[in-house]
Amino acid sequence: MSDVVSRVREYLLGLQQRIVTALEAEDGQGRFIRDEWTKPPGEKLQGEGITRLMEEGALLERGGVGFSHVRGPALPPSATQHRPELAGAPFEAMGVSLVFHPRNPYVPTVHMNVRMLAAAHAGEEPVTWFGGGMDLTPYYGFEDDAAHFHRTNRDALAPFGADKYPRFKQWCDEYFFLKHRNEPRGIGGVFFDDFSEGGFEQGFALQRAVGDAFLSAYLPIVQRRRDMPYGERERDFQAYRRGRYVEFNLVWDRGTLFGLQSGGRTESILMSLPPIVKWRYDWQPEAGTPEAKLYSDFLKPREWIR
Amino acid sequence: MSDVVSRVREYLLGLQQRIVTALEAEDGQGRFIRDEWTKPPGEKLQGEGITRLMEEGALLERGGVGFSHVRGPALPPSATQHRPELAGAPFEAMGVSLVFHPRNPYVPTVHMNVRMLAAAHAGEEPVTWFGGGMDLTPYYGFEDDAAHFHRTNRDALAPFGADKYPRFKQWCDEYFFLKHRNEPRGIGGVFFDDFSEGGFEQGFALQRAVGDAFLSAYLPIVQRRRDMPYGERERDFQAYRRGRYVEFNLVWDRGTLFGLQSGGRTESILMSLPPIVKWRYDWQPEAGTPEAKLYSDFLKPREWIR
Repeated sequence: MSDVVSRVREYLLGLQQRIVTALEAEDGQGRFIRDEWTKPPGEKLQGEGITRLMEEGALLERGGVGFSHVRGPALPPSATQHRPELAGAPFEAMGVSLVFHPRNPYVPTVHMNVRMLAAAHAGEEPVTWFGGGMDLTPYYGFEDDAAHFHRTNRDALAPFGADKYPRFKQWCDEYFFLKHRNEPRGIGGVFFDDFSEGGFEQGFALQRAVGDAFLSAYLPIVQRRRDMPYGERERDFQAYRRGRYVEFNLVWDRGTLFGLQSGGRTESILMSLPPIVKWRYDWQPEAGTPEAKLYSDFLKPREWIR
Repeated sequence: MSDVVSRVREYLLGLQQRIVTALEAEDGQGRFIRDEWTKPPGEKLQGEGITRLMEEGALLERGGVGFSHVRGPALPPSATQHRPELAGAPFEAMGVSLVFHPRNPYVPTVHMNVRMLAAAHAGEEPVTWFGGGMDLTPYYGFEDDAAHFHRTNRDALAPFGADKYPRFKQWCDEYFFLKHRNEPRGIGGVFFDDFSEGGFEQGFALQRAVGDAFLSAYLPIVQRRRDMPYGERERDFQAYRRGRYVEFNLVWDRGTLFGLQSGGRTESILMSLPPIVKWRYDWQPEAGTPEAKLYSDFLKPREWIR
């Protein structure tokens, strides 16, 4: 394993553990199981991972934080359009990915991912690309929460240039969009991919900035909302809206589809899916309700930072 | 509209109504709403449809029977590999598609579809292809039910040659397979596509044979199982297994994906999704339970007719 790969691996494993520890403390009741897995050589992708997963917690109805590190013998052509000299080179991909589905419908669902792809022909220094981001999916919207989430991301990205937050915010709005519903997944956040500006050190620093910002972006929102009382009506709306999360992840999310179609570890990939989901036909919230407000005021690309 | 197109349209509308009437009678309580929709000219696909949907019935927790008839200006290249002379020709596609999700976990979920594609350059007779089939997805398996379902299909296909049932049965096993789980969706049935052997009359007769066989394939099973008592355990397993249905339809089903990605009517396409679904991590049934028997004895491609 090259030096850059092992530095990133160490960071990602530490990040996974920090997030698990913080969420267990916040949950107060649930524990993350730890499931180590390997894909043996001979399968399409070889590698290993650590899945941490909580179900039926006090705060988290279902939530997982996964680390994976896979190796392949040859970069596929789709990954080397801009770097033909790396076509067919051996590669490694690693990342941390999380989705938390809280029980209380006033606490939003959150997703965060940081990942690196490294490729090199034998004996050469690897070329690295970074990707990642985080996005928030409320069931009941709060402008303060959206502003806090975006502000935390903007501040984390500020050292990398004033262009980063607006670019990555827009990229997020475009990526987490359900084309078949003409509807954003939530209130967005930041998203970036194929990032190699400034070489490895700059990319790794950007990855750490995003990963390190996660807890301060999400936990204050959890703490503000987790004790709000709710009933069957709110749980029902949450279950209905979670259907959109399933639709996005299974129909549009490239990471999920690539994983499922390339022989990735199914249970680890699908830990992003919510615990209980409902579908019903052509449902629309009544005008003037808090549920209607989610659509009219929050499921629109907006500037959240005033 | 050409003569062949209007004959098929009339058959399909009648089939939809017959199935709706029979299921309402069987349900005894629920009614199918009727939702007519159109895709105006100028959208990618132009056309119209009639969606019939029941939710919260006594028998059907959610179930829909959709008719659609769409027109496009030019066949895509993927559809004309074997008929290059039709590349770019205007086409029409129509079909009836249904999925029924019963409330009682002892009653299996069922899917049936019959469809026709017709294409012709201006002033020429259309070339037609037929496709369709039906498949059964039990939560608790019964050999008698599986044998009845397959026997009904075999008998319906017998007039078209002894090769049809075995070919279409195997095609069904291959199509309704969750590659990411290495698991069949259910106990299969029959599936065929791009059928043009014997020209329009033969294809249309085959389509009618399959469509007309649906009620006799499914209703006897419903009648045998609908009054079996069940509790929370069976409902919970049903909700968990329904997750597989969602995964198949959103990740692998070409009809669903083509519809969602090409601007089809989302609510009509997604009426195939179950009303309540649960996901949980890496769940396995305990050995020796009826739930384990589903996996060991039914979710395997088998010859069901002895």
